[in-house]
Amino acid sequence: MASYLITGAGRGLGLELATQLAGLPTTQVSIVFAAIRSSTPPSALQALIEKSEGRVVAVTSMIITDRTSLDKAVAQVEAQLKGKGLDVLINNAGALPPAFDGIAKMDNLRYAFEVNVEAVHDVTSAFLPLLKKGTAKKVVNISTTLGSIDHAPKYKWAPFPAYKISKAALNMLTVQCAQEYAQEGFTVFAVSPGWLRTDLGTENADLDVSVGAQATLHVIGNSTTEDNGTFRNILVPGWENKEGPNQYDGKIVPW
Amino acid sequence: MASYLITGAGRGLGLELATQLAGLPTTQVSIVFAAIRSSTPPSALQALIEKSEGRVVAVTSMIITDRTSLDKAVAQVEAQLKGKGLDVLINNAGALPPAFDGIAKMDNLRYAFEVNVEAVHDVTSAFLPLLKKGTAKKVVNISTTLGSIDHAPKYKWAPFPAYKISKAALNMLTVQCAQEYAQEGFTVFAVSPGWLRTDLGTENADLDVSVGAQATLHVIGNSTTEDNGTFRNILVPGWENKEGPNQYDGKIVPW
Repeated sequence: MASYLITGAGRGLGLELATQLAGLPTTQVSIVFAAIRSSTPPSALQALIEKSEGRVVAVTSMIITDRTSLDKAVAQVEAQLKGKGLDVLINNAGALPPAFDGIAKMDNLRYAFEVNVEAVHDVTSAFLPLLKKGTAKKVVNISTTLGSIDHAPKYKWAPFPAYKISKAALNMLTVQCAQEYAQEGFTVFAVSPGWLRTDLGTENADLDVSVGAQATLHVIGNSTTEDNGTFRNILVPGWENKEGPNQYDGKIVPW
Repeated sequence: MASYLITGAGRGLGLELATQLAGLPTTQVSIVFAAIRSSTPPSALQALIEKSEGRVVAVTSMIITDRTSLDKAVAQVEAQLKGKGLDVLINNAGALPPAFDGIAKMDNLRYAFEVNVEAVHDVTSAFLPLLKKGTAKKVVNISTTLGSIDHAPKYKWAPFPAYKISKAALNMLTVQCAQEYAQEGFTVFAVSPGWLRTDLGTENADLDVSVGAQATLHVIGNSTTEDNGTFRNILVPGWENKEGPNQYDGKIVPW
């Protein structure tokens, strides 16, 4: 009977995570807060909410880069939880700014840090009191193997330096939070959800978003405090030893 | 007969690097550009300049977080180089913002990214045309073992999360630049100069700044294109296997 909050839940991986969580038994998932920056849910999320019989709740106008809006979102979630805590926070919202003209002309590093790192820090800090009241105490940061410095050679082809740099920073933020909250029973970790066919991943991606979301929820569901401070890959049968840059082997990703 | 530019050369490690470089034979070092943000050199740098017989030149009012000021600095350096290129850029300027009240209250992540990552990107990009004209083509980013995510467990005691996060990002930036400029013959790498007794390192640090600077210059001087995209530790005799968090073993630092 865990409660979840997912950022960036209006589309793509976030929406799919919310959809799949809402499909699980109420013994596993009590409520899913679908946080979005717009003031009204996009139609697919609206349909999910209507179908969910109160288990999926939109947290609208939650602008992750704006602390005032975060405070309002926390108050909204707190009211809905009626004295209970928030169990699982999934920091899913993110941006993939490209640098097609080379790194010297990269002008979106600031933006990448704001959305992919600073906002994750602010969202986590804002919801921390509710998370401390929760029983699961999980914070899941959606990262990427492209943020692995160790893996950088095999992703040289991908023209997203600001994304890679900000996700490496997110990984270190994850570890810093994991260390700080370990003794309170938290499990804070990073997951690479795979290259998924979403607006962000494009149709050239490896996996359908439903496959990535399911594999990500498998990692989250099976995580324990042993996973605190780790960087986990998803497991997708047939992709464990695939040729090419991406393997989905369920293992620890090197930093 | 290499030309060097060092950011943050008004004090601490930057000043010591400039001082030691100026003490090397002219066959090794032709000119040292000491970049500082103030409009006049602090007294110690001024004394070095006066003693150097033209080998140490101040680049004043170079605000690394301000692109307009960088453009002016590049023009100033270009004029001094009289048609030659810049051989070695040492991105030394940095900030060590603390978070003594815990990571949830950390409010200096933006500042750390601006100074320790975005500014390094902007400085490198601004000087890139001059570096391409140089023969050594070295870009040295002063990093820290505290920015190693792999080493995070042993630095849990150090209350500098924004510093650690920004330096992990700097390491990924270093690798991205290394990949992009490899085929033009560049050597772009990160060096951890050790914990040094400077204003930034405090008097509790492991090493005198002269020791760290000498060891850092040893790494830079001996670097080849083989070091492109690496993260190097300094070597200090007696510190290779020291107990405690810090070893100075001259080896590759894991990410």
